[in-house]
This record gives sequence, C-alpha cells and structure tokens, in this order.
Amino acid sequence: MREVAVIGVGMTKFGELWDTPLRDLFAIASANCIEDSGVERDRIQSAYIGCMSSGLFNQQEHLASILCDYAGLAGIAATRVESACASGGLAFRSAYLEVASGASDFVLAGGVEKMNDGADATFCLASAADQEYEVYHGITFPGLYAMIAHAHMAKYGTTSEQLAHVAVKNHRHGAKNPNAQFPMEITLNTVLNAVRVASPLGLFDCSPVTDGGACVMLCPVEEAKKLGKPIIKVIGSGHATDSIALHDRPDLTTIPVVKAAAERALAQAKIGIKNVDFCEVHDCFTIAELCCLEELGVFERGQAAQATVDGATSLDGKMPVNTSGGLKSKGHPVGATGIAQIIELVEQLTGKAGARQLLSPSIGLAQNMGGSGGSSTVHILEVS
Amino acid sequence: MREVAVIGVGMTKFGELWDTPLRDLFAIASANCIEDSGVERDRIQSAYIGCMSSGLFNQQEHLASILCDYAGLAGIAATRVESACASGGLAFRSAYLEVASGASDFVLAGGVEKMNDGADATFCLASAADQEYEVYHGITFPGLYAMIAHAHMAKYGTTSEQLAHVAVKNHRHGAKNPNAQFPMEITLNTVLNAVRVASPLGLFDCSPVTDGGACVMLCPVEEAKKLGKPIIKVIGSGHATDSIALHDRPDLTTIPVVKAAAERALAQAKIGIKNVDFCEVHDCFTIAELCCLEELGVFERGQAAQATVDGATSLDGKMPVNTSGGLKSKGHPVGATGIAQIIELVEQLTGKAGARQLLSPSIGLAQNMGGSGGSSTVHILEVS
Repeated sequence: MREVAVIGVGMTKFGELWDTPLRDLFAIASANCIEDSGVERDRIQSAYIGCMSSGLFNQQEHLASILCDYAGLAGIAATRVESACASGGLAFRSAYLEVASGASDFVLAGGVEKMNDGADATFCLASAADQEYEVYHGITFPGLYAMIAHAHMAKYGTTSEQLAHVAVKNHRHGAKNPNAQFPMEITLNTVLNAVRVASPLGLFDCSPVTDGGACVMLCPVEEAKKLGKPIIKVIGSGHATDSIALHDRPDLTTIPVVKAAAERALAQAKIGIKNVDFCEVHDCFTIAELCCLEELGVFERGQAAQATVDGATSLDGKMPVNTSGGLKSKGHPVGATGIAQIIELVEQLTGKAGARQLLSPSIGLAQNMGGSGGSSTVHILEVS
Repeated sequence: MREVAVIGVGMTKFGELWDTPLRDLFAIASANCIEDSGVERDRIQSAYIGCMSSGLFNQQEHLASILCDYAGLAGIAATRVESACASGGLAFRSAYLEVASGASDFVLAGGVEKMNDGADATFCLASAADQEYEVYHGITFPGLYAMIAHAHMAKYGTTSEQLAHVAVKNHRHGAKNPNAQFPMEITLNTVLNAVRVASPLGLFDCSPVTDGGACVMLCPVEEAKKLGKPIIKVIGSGHATDSIALHDRPDLTTIPVVKAAAERALAQAKIGIKNVDFCEVHDCFTIAELCCLEELGVFERGQAAQATVDGATSLDGKMPVNTSGGLKSKGHPVGATGIAQIIELVEQLTGKAGARQLLSPSIGLAQNMGGSGGSSTVHILEVS
C-alpha cells in the first residue's frame, strides 16, 4: 500500500441554496478543488462521490455519472457510494484505498446533498433507519437521538444544560467559518428555551437541513512532492458497520461502531487518541458529539459533558472539537459532511483556517457516522 | 496488484418475489454464496453491495449496513455502490480492487433490487436518466431505447424481426436456467405481435421488472489455491462513464462508454475480443444487446443483427451471448444484474451451467451498463 496525501480541497458555502441545483453543488465544489490542487483535469483517473439519497430528495440516481458529466469529467471511472450520513467519509476512504493500492494516481473524493428541493427532509432522512422495524412505527431521527440522550442522562446524570454547551461551543467556532450555514454565536438560554423537537432535544440541539457540496483530491505522497504541495498524509483509515436498529444495541449510551472504526484507524496510524491534536466529530445532535467523543476515547464514559462545559473541546482547549462549527453550525448536507470534515483537517494542518486557526496542529482526526450508529468512518491526517 | 479469484457464488431465483423483502433477498443470496465458497464468516473482511434505488423503491437507504446486519455480517466494512443498472458490476469491480490492493483477503460482492414493492417502477427507473433535461419532459427508458432503435434502423437497415431474434434467442437460453424469471421459449410471432411499449420496441423487446439478489466471493488466487478451489481468475476489469443524456451523444447508434470500459478490461487482460469464448451483455432491450456487441467489437457496426439471426450468438454459435437468458429472460433486478452476469461466467467456466453448458470455455466476459449508456463495467474471467 502506497502513502497517500490530500493535495487540494474545495467546497460550496453550506446553506439553503435554492438557486443551486444538485449538479451545480458538485460542479462548484469540484472546480474549486481541482483549481486548489493544481492538477490538470486529464490526470484525474477516477472519482468517488458520497450521497445519501439523491433518489428521495431529487429523483436522481446514476449520480456519479451525471455529476462528473456536468463537472466536465465525463469518461472517468466514477462511483457513487452510500452509507447514509457517513457517505462522505466512505467516499474519502474509497478514494484513499484506490490511490493506496496503486490502481490510480489522482482520485477525486466528493460529497453532495441537495436537501432543500421540495422533498420532506424528515421522511427522506428516516430512510437511514430501519424502515420496517423503526420508521414504520413512527420514529424519526430526533426521536432516536432523544432516546439516546435520555439513556445518557439516566446513566451518567448528563443534563440539558451540558448538552446546550455543545451547541454554544460549535456555534462559537462556526461563527469564524465563512462557509458555515449559521455562522452566529448563540447563548445557553437560546438553546435551553428553544422549542422541543423531541424531548430532551430542542431545535438548537439538532443539526440543520442543508444543501452543499465538498471535494478533496488525493494522490500518492511521491506525486504530491513533485507538485511542491504541503504533505498532508492520510495515516489511518477505519470503517465499520453495526446493527442499524437501536433496539438491537446492548446499551443505548454507546455507539460501538465509532469505537470499532477508530480502533482500525488508530492501529493503522500506530498512534493513540492522545497523539491527536484536534478532531471533527459527527454532531448531528448535541448528544451525538458527547457519545462519539467517549467512543473515541477522548474522554472517559460519562465525562464528555462536563469536559465540554469546562472548555476542553473549545478552540483553546486540550482537544479542540469541531473547529469548523461542526454539523450544528456549519450545516449538515448529509453526503457532503464527511468530506467537509476532511477539508477542515486540511485547512487546520496547512494553517489556512483563518480566525479559527489552531496553533500548529500536526495530527487531526475526522469521525463521520451513518444514522444512529449503523456505520462510521474514521480518518487521521498528519502534516509533515 | 495481486491476482484475484472468484471462489463462490449464490443467488435467489429471479422473479416477482412478493413474499421476499429487500433484506431477505440479500440474506438468501449471501448465505448461498458463503456456503458455496466454504469461507468461514469471520474471515470476510468487507462487502460491496450494488443497488440502484432502494430509496425510491423501498424507502430504505443506509443499505449496506442494514443488509449486512440481517445477513449476520454486522461489523464488517460494508459499502453500497450505485451506478444505476451498472451498480452490480461496479460492486464487483470495487471488491476486486480491494482484494487486488492487498487491503483485504475475503470480500463479498453483492447486488440486490426489490422492484415489486408497491412503487411505480417506471418512475423509479427514470431516475437513471437526466431528471431535469430528459425525465421532466416525459421520456422513459423504453422511449430512450426506442430512439436508439430508430436510429440504428435508419443507419443500418436493422429490422424489428432482427430485434425479435435477440429475444427469441435469449428466451431459448433462459429456458435452461432454473433461476430465470421467464424460463420459457417464445416465438418470433409472439415478439412481433406483442403490444408496443415504445415503437419499435414491443413488450418482448423489453427486460422485465424483477426482484432478486446475487453474491460472489473474491479472494487472492493464493488463498483460493489453499482452499482447493477451481481457479476462476479476474484477468480484466474496466469501468467508464459518459454523458448521461442521450442528446449529448454524437451518434445515437453508438454507446461509447461500453467501448471505453471494454478497452480498459481487454488491455489489462492483454487479450483481444477474439480470445473471449462467450459473453454476458446488458440486453435491457433487444436493441441494447446489438449495440453492446458492436461496441465490444464482437461484430462490425451494423452486423450484430444479422449475425444474431444467423445463430452466431446462440449456445452453439461462434460467440454465445447471454447463455443465462440475459436480462430479457432471466430477469433484471437492476442492482443484482451485474453480479448475476459474473455468476453465469463462473458457472460456465466451472462446468456447472447444466443444460446450457458450453463446451469447455476458458474465457468469459461480462458487460454491465447504466441507463442509456452513462456508465459501464466490463469484466473478463479465465479458468486455469
């Protein structure tokens, strides 16, 4: 397996982009990425595109072909991969494996989702849960995560106020990100007094419905050196699945798929979580950020909530988490999220994160998750 | 890149399987495949599952996770890939690349589609075309291929009777396949007198709406030898995309994506099409089989129709085509088709094709296609 680097990034602004159709989201993100990478188009051999449900949202399948066609890349081997909200992370992993294997040198990994297009987002997103055993009986994603939150509160004494601190912190970070959908700071009271979506989760505990596209370019480290690029190396890639329905889990407060994916990525990187300087984690709901941090081993079980209150995950904390603003403030165009997480790692590692720049980080981790924990990817990037 | 072998196959019967839900189609096919391979479940490291639109057909995304969960494979790295009707071929290619790269040893490649589940199949299938520039204006897939057929007739004098010979031949083959949806012989008159779906294509020029699942197991040739398996080696894998909308093609009688994918596969295999003993091609409509054979170089342009009439593509012809019955008679559960094609190659190459067995073939080719030619995969297998 060859060493692989990320040599270019590009994305759209995230938001309600009513004037930007699905195909344009990818065309814009890929054009920005290709320009940033400095690679000529005819050297790009293949593309992987993560998207959860262009079928339900936009009645458009055959997605990789149509997106590459409109992006001026018709002819290349292009593959759409789907793993619900982890589709972007999976596209990145697929591209990484193709370059690492030696099959291709320059591979584009992209993600896209056009959620504001007339379809019922709650109905479309529910297709990430078990349709026959969960959705049919009326559950939605806020409801699934509300059950996780209740269990976490019962077992560890986690409070709504602690959850609110996650949202406040991520909006504080996102306010410094020009691509964020909701780049404004919010207060604890705003979160706590907001309308309940599924108790104990209120409106500000939930990530928004977002349109967006994101792309990164991968190539062998040797080629990156020839191009004179900063070397942002992929040192670990992990991917796992688990039972999809929440009722099959032994303990609602754990998300074992995150631990499994992280163990694979850390083992490949030959490091421990303590060697990681910052991370992007899948905060589709405030409770999700806490569970993921506990699965990653950043904090002991039951301790992520208080650590967040104490500032450990803020920009100046010992482990800055979701410096981009996370899904909460930056937005969550489902298939694009996993790629946007990688973009944040690259921008931090190359010193291009602007007002939210960390002080010389060298290793970052991105954790992307599908549904309520039916799949997860974990990637670790290092600047050298 | 390591040499890769196919060491096990399994599928459901194809048909209107009203009693078999989506997840069961994969559970049955994967169980049959794993048993046939003789590999213990805990040695299977990852899975790729091709499916076009479980979102539109079944309101179920996050597909690889849920299918692997119900098949007793929860925990493995599982990826759903989508490229419309070429999703199965793409799943096979993805699995092949993962084994060839050295990343994994035992990888399952599957395909599944549950088309009879209450949804409007014509609406769902139309999502493989360009939604904004084709479907919105009323076109359906029979209509797209009818335009291709008209153009072929105008340019080469191809007749409806010649097209009917494709259907009669494929049903003659399919009648010998116990897994076929329509395993009965039909006559020229049946095809020619059937109701028109989109002139000049009648009901018997079109592949049916089908439920089905199919799986194959891949591993390095070295592992296959240790298991004492017959060595069915993957000697070529090609994949390409093209503009998705028909109006972007320079000539409606050509499907350049098939030629591009075939050239890549043949170049890797270091053989010419003349070295191939038999093939499975994507006969979603009778005209498609002729166009694909001309793109593959099996016949000169404009000559596939008369060659079919003359018996060149029959079981005893110089190039048997669609010995399984093809999409026409065996059925076309979209995501499963590309894997079922590989299964036919393996059964022919191992002498297990029963009443439709060819006389000692050594090299077979499978060509799978998305939409009206927006994507295609070509795989070449050799028994040694």
